[in-house]
This record gives sequence, structure tokens and C-alpha cells, in this order.
Amino acid sequence: MAKKTSLKDIAQEVGVSTALVSYVLNNKKENKISKQVAQKIRAVAKALNYRPNQIAKSLKTNKTFTLGLVVADISNPFSSSLTRIIEDEADQQQYTVLVGSSDEQPQKARKLIETLLNRQVDGLLIVPTEGMEKQLADLQKQGVPFVLIDRYFPDLKTNYVALDNYGAIYKATQHLIDSGYRRIGMITFQTTLYTITERKRGYLEALKANNITFSKSWLKEVRRATYKTDIEKAVRELLGGKNPVEAILFASNTLALFGLKPIKELQKRVPDDVAIITLDQADAYDLFHTPVTYIRQPLPEMGQLATRILLESIPKNNAITQTNLDGELVIRASTRST
Amino acid sequence: MAKKTSLKDIAQEVGVSTALVSYVLNNKKENKISKQVAQKIRAVAKALNYRPNQIAKSLKTNKTFTLGLVVADISNPFSSSLTRIIEDEADQQQYTVLVGSSDEQPQKARKLIETLLNRQVDGLLIVPTEGMEKQLADLQKQGVPFVLIDRYFPDLKTNYVALDNYGAIYKATQHLIDSGYRRIGMITFQTTLYTITERKRGYLEALKANNITFSKSWLKEVRRATYKTDIEKAVRELLGGKNPVEAILFASNTLALFGLKPIKELQKRVPDDVAIITLDQADAYDLFHTPVTYIRQPLPEMGQLATRILLESIPKNNAITQTNLDGELVIRASTRST
Repeated sequence: MAKKTSLKDIAQEVGVSTALVSYVLNNKKENKISKQVAQKIRAVAKALNYRPNQIAKSLKTNKTFTLGLVVADISNPFSSSLTRIIEDEADQQQYTVLVGSSDEQPQKARKLIETLLNRQVDGLLIVPTEGMEKQLADLQKQGVPFVLIDRYFPDLKTNYVALDNYGAIYKATQHLIDSGYRRIGMITFQTTLYTITERKRGYLEALKANNITFSKSWLKEVRRATYKTDIEKAVRELLGGKNPVEAILFASNTLALFGLKPIKELQKRVPDDVAIITLDQADAYDLFHTPVTYIRQPLPEMGQLATRILLESIPKNNAITQTNLDGELVIRASTRST
Repeated sequence: MAKKTSLKDIAQEVGVSTALVSYVLNNKKENKISKQVAQKIRAVAKALNYRPNQIAKSLKTNKTFTLGLVVADISNPFSSSLTRIIEDEADQQQYTVLVGSSDEQPQKARKLIETLLNRQVDGLLIVPTEGMEKQLADLQKQGVPFVLIDRYFPDLKTNYVALDNYGAIYKATQHLIDSGYRRIGMITFQTTLYTITERKRGYLEALKANNITFSKSWLKEVRRATYKTDIEKAVRELLGGKNPVEAILFASNTLALFGLKPIKELQKRVPDDVAIITLDQADAYDLFHTPVTYIRQPLPEMGQLATRILLESIPKNNAITQTNLDGELVIRASTRST
């Protein structure tokens, strides 16, 4: 990189002291400096492409106007749409967002958070992964302002903005039951993450409240590492055998994206052979033969609210805000109404 | 935010000078300091959660180990997948990537680049938008190391890594012609961007080389601002009227995503009623009734190569590397082979 223009370079060019250049370019004590000299300093600074060093500046203000954002995987549409919303919201407050992916690995999340803190971000927005409780508790002890998004740990008293996962899945299951289905399968991730276990609980509780005896074979928990093949196998099992399910509930948009494919390949009619409902949507579903009923993830609200809570907690950081947002049921042709 | 532990805090706790603490924690002159004192300083630093100030450090090394990445829109799968590849590649060299979206607006790109440079990134990776030529020429004059990705300006002698767009679309068109189609429609974006105009040229030249008389009604250029409705209209026009086309070439994965939907709604059989080929793929296409033939975008190669070229140009920045990668034809059921 070409050497950057320093205050000294400008001082030498104009023939004044470095301190004088600094005063002028930082708009200080200007009334004590001759207008002519000030003008010349500005002209030379421009001609030499002088760029104020933001890093040196932030040392003085103790604020970098940068937020760190840790997502699970930037290449997942949920993460990238959320990132875009947070960027836009932060930009309105003159904040730049530094984004990185944890890849669902707590060690990678730790390294990323360390890097962000060492670069003195003013606060963090985190979509946590399994096994990060201790790490987050430590951040709290150190007084680092942060807000969890989408996922949280019920035993940790931290800021968070998340979907009411239990309520959303209860609503989806109830909709299937109200539409006349009783043998209802669910495909979800195998994990201890509260967000996901709450989805399972919503499904089981809704069945129970409607006096439907749950069969173990209806619940398929796929492994993250091998989810593409696991989902395909799960769909084939749910729709095969003597007692196939009448409806499938997908617990996330990724699960549905890869679960609709085998349903298409098996040439199942939707909803006549099997009804479909999913949490969160994707433009991709429009290519599927039947429009899919889904629970809307309030992504804009989630990203905006989390950013605002973080920006409010940077100066003081003395209150905890916990928000569970409602998912909205959007009924389309894949679930037949009675 | 809780007050950060300073060197002074540690010095007071141990009862030594701040300079001594600094020497120990920066591993300098340690042989001149008693082991016992050094150990005590380290223990206190740990107990007080001391965090070295990376910003102060980078002022000394003149390197921040941060790269700026400007994409068109992080919520587009092309951008988010590319970002993930660049993150992984940069991470291997201990670089953090600061990502932001230009939203296809040169003014927004200018602001973002200014912000990144003011935060002293070591170099930039840029997917440029229309109208950025002057801006990029200025960056070059200032000696800022940067590499353009995916798009570039033929009149600007800059580093870039891009697809051979002309060659890729020529190959796609030739494949359709070899498969027996002659009335071939193309849906692309209305833009002056070289990347996209080269795609149009590839299509027109392939028709010409095969003695097919091009009809103006075959080429549909949609506006970015209203592309979703424009694509739908374009597909219906290409497939309607007295002389519908026999094949459609989509110039990007977004165009195909929203173009396959009306083809499905019109209940067209693929490839019997209309053959389909697209540049770049998406998991979503698997939900479409017929597997889609596509030209593979070499995304990993593109992201990795651009990152490597940038990291090599940071210390010297005295060579220009321009790379046009080949797109690979992946034939599936949507184009019938003769």
C-alpha cells in the first residue's frame, strides 16, 4: 500500500508545525489561527489525499461505532437476511457491522468473539450455538454489552430477542389438527438448543391437548452434520410403511427445503396424500407444486429490535430485555381447511 | 460497558511502574525483569480480565489484519455464499473480514468504502456496481490494494477475478442449439455492467455462428428495481403468442428462481414444451418438476483466488492480476439431448 499521508507530511508541505495542522483538521482553536493558513492546510490535505486515522480517533473517544455480529452460517438464508436487516438498522445510527460465522462450533464462536473484542467493537449481537453458556456468562461478568438473537439459554439472564418457538409450533400443530389431520409427523434437528427443544415441546403439547396419542415413529430428529440425507430418509420413513402420517411439520426452512424434494420424488399429492406446514418460508417453495402453509418468522422485527436494545445498552448496560416474538400463521394450499 | 482494565490498573495492583507491566505483557526485555514480578503481573492481568488493545497495537504495526468486502446484497445467495468462502480463506491467514452491502448503489458503495478505509482495513474485495469506475480509479491512484470480484470494467486496469461470461453463455446457447432448439429466448438484466452485457453478446454471437436469425422479441431485459414482476411478464411473453420460443436461457440464478414459477403455473412441460438452461444454480431448483441444466459458477475458486491475490498485493501492490474463470456445463433433464 502507498504510504499514507501523515499530519507531518502536510506540515512540511505548508511549512507549519504538525500541531497546527492537527488543530485545523480537527476543527480546534481555529479562531486563533489565521484563515489563510487554515485554508492552505486544508487544500494541501486534500491534494495529498489525507485520510483521518479512525483508529487513532477511536482511542480518544473510546468508541469505535462498530458492532460485532456472530451468525451460525452466513450462507444460510436466515443468517444472511438477518445480517442485511441489522446492517440497515445499524447504518441509520452510523454503526458499521462486522459479521462472521461460528459454523455451529463453540470454539469457532469463541475465537470470533475474541477477535471482535480485541478490535474493540462497542457491543455484540450473537446467534449462539450449543455449548456457549459458559462463554456468554464470562462475557457478562466482563461487562461486555451483547444481545442474543433467535436462540438463548433459559438459565442465563441475558438480553435476547427470539421467536416464541413453543407458541409458534403449538399454533402450527393445532392448525393441522383443526384441518382434520391426526397422524402428524414432525422433522426437527437433534440438539439440546432450547429454541429447538421448545419446538418439539409445542408439537407434543398440542397433540396431548387434543387427546392424540403420540407415536415415537412420528418424530424425526436429524443430525446437523448429515441433515440432507437424514431429512430424505425421515420423509421416506414417515410416508412409507403401513401407517404413513397424514401431515408433516417441518421445524425450519432448511428442513423443508430438503424435505419437499423427496415428497416431490415420491409423487405425493399435497395435501391429499400428505399435508405440509413449515416454520419460516423461502422463495424456493414457490417452485414446489403446491403453495406451502407456514409460520412467519418475524425477521425484520427480530433484527431491528436486537440492534436497538444493543445500542441502548452500550452507554449504560444496566437493564436486561428479553423478548419473545409471535409467529404468524400463513395458510396456503398445502394444509386443507375443513 | 464496564471500564476496561488498563496497564495502569495492573501496575497499581502489583505496585510496579506501568512501563514494567507493558514490557512484561508485550514480552519485551523480560530477561532484565525478575521472574517473580513477571509472574505476578501476568496473574493480576488474568484476574482483572486484561484485554490487549488491538487498536493501539495496530497503530504500531500499521496492519490491522482486516479485509473489507463490499458485496451487492448480502441477502442474495450468490453474495452470502461468496462471503462465506472469503471468510474461510481469510481466516486461514488470520484475517478478519468486514462485510457490507452496496445495494447496487454507487453512492452507498462510496460511503461503505470510506468507512472501511477510515477503519484502516489492509485491503478491499469489491463486487462493484454500475457507475463505480471513477471511484475505483481514485482508489488506485491512492494506492489502496483491492481486487474486484465477479464484475469488472474492461477500461480499468485493476486486479479482478470473474467468470468468462461471454464464454459461459456462448456454451449454454450452443448446447441448446446442439440439442435441436432454434427459437431460443434469453432473460437477462437491463444494465450497462460489462459482466451482463458480455452474457448478451455470448448469446447473440452463438446464434449468429449457427446461422439462426435473431428476433428482437426473444431477448428480455428486466429492470433490477422491478425484476420479480418483469420476469413473470417476460416468461409469459416468450411462451405466449403465435411463435413461442422453444427454449429459455436465464442469465442468473435469481432470474431463474423467479422465472421457473410462471413456467410451473402455465403448466408447461420441460423440456417438451420449453427447454430451460440457467447460469448458476440453487438448491431451490430441486423443488421444480424437472432437474435444470446449468452453467456452474466457480464460486469457491473465485472467492479463494481473489482473497489470495489481495493478500499478496497488500505488502507490495505492484502487479495486476486479471483472471477469467471457465463455467462448466452441467446437463440435466431440462434440455433434451438429440
